[in-house]
Amino acid sequence: MGADETTTLYLALVHHPVVNKNREVIGSAVTNLDIHDIARTGRTYGVAKYFIISPYEDQHILVTELLDHWLKGYGASYNPARKSALERVQLEWNLESVVQYLKEKDGRAPAIVTTSALKQDNTIAFSDLRKRLTSKEPVLLLFGTAHGLAPEIIQKADYSLPPILGGTSYNHLSVRSAAAIIVDRLLGS
Amino acid sequence: MGADETTTLYLALVHHPVVNKNREVIGSAVTNLDIHDIARTGRTYGVAKYFIISPYEDQHILVTELLDHWLKGYGASYNPARKSALERVQLEWNLESVVQYLKEKDGRAPAIVTTSALKQDNTIAFSDLRKRLTSKEPVLLLFGTAHGLAPEIIQKADYSLPPILGGTSYNHLSVRSAAAIIVDRLLGS
Repeated sequence: MGADETTTLYLALVHHPVVNKNREVIGSAVTNLDIHDIARTGRTYGVAKYFIISPYEDQHILVTELLDHWLKGYGASYNPARKSALERVQLEWNLESVVQYLKEKDGRAPAIVTTSALKQDNTIAFSDLRKRLTSKEPVLLLFGTAHGLAPEIIQKADYSLPPILGGTSYNHLSVRSAAAIIVDRLLGS
Repeated sequence: MGADETTTLYLALVHHPVVNKNREVIGSAVTNLDIHDIARTGRTYGVAKYFIISPYEDQHILVTELLDHWLKGYGASYNPARKSALERVQLEWNLESVVQYLKEKDGRAPAIVTTSALKQDNTIAFSDLRKRLTSKEPVLLLFGTAHGLAPEIIQKADYSLPPILGGTSYNHLSVRSAAAIIVDRLLGS
């Protein structure tokens, strides 16, 4: 791959519908470091776009202010590397608007793939998804905030990646760490 | 590996000596999410201990308060999974005190291995370090905050891991993401 070529992998961080610790469907607030860390991981591996999905107008105002600081404000000159990562962040209202954007951009619907700390029915192996990306097929990978993606969004997806297991029974990675590991497994050399 | 067996991998997050963007040696403040995210990654993969290294007394007070909240305070009952991850966090003053602790605990000096976004002279391949861990040899992996570990600490180490490259020229991962990727490469299945 060329030095700064982009891949056909797209990431989306979902803030609604997700579940809380009692598995009730909720919406979550955007966490500043989720934007930064996953944007930097994405930029490192040539992820094409990183979508922040939230249905809440106040969250859109907040994220827009944050992005403006790093893309146009003092942050842009203070830290050009951060600007370069955050340039690929795109704020969206819901999964449908993301898919619509990708269809218009690419002419193809992406394979929608969820991530979860629990095993799902429609599992796709890391190696199989890696092959699709090598073949330049568009893949939209969904990450959930709070205690994970709601069942309604997992059911809409084409596939789910298996949970990240580290040889112990503990499966409580942060979404920032899970995204880093998963993107490395899909695009790392 | 058994369900909750611990490995011989130890992590340490260094807050001094590290460098700033001008490559000057500085000390950095502890970032809350560095403690949580790397502790959760460590716990997932059976990392034996995660050391927070800072020479500053005020930082020790801060980190102790934070750990007390999650280990003994309200956080412990609210989120037992977080407690389980943070139980393996140990606050230390410097690299020497960490190595001393490990020698006393294990009877052996660990291999000290640094991580960096830049290629170093004493590189060890991920596969070679993975083999040492499979053979149950103790390995202490150092991560730098701010703009990375200072040269004086890199020179003291036995080995350095190669930088994480993602097929682009961009190499500005967060330390939280880099730690997740590196631990997965060393201990992931």
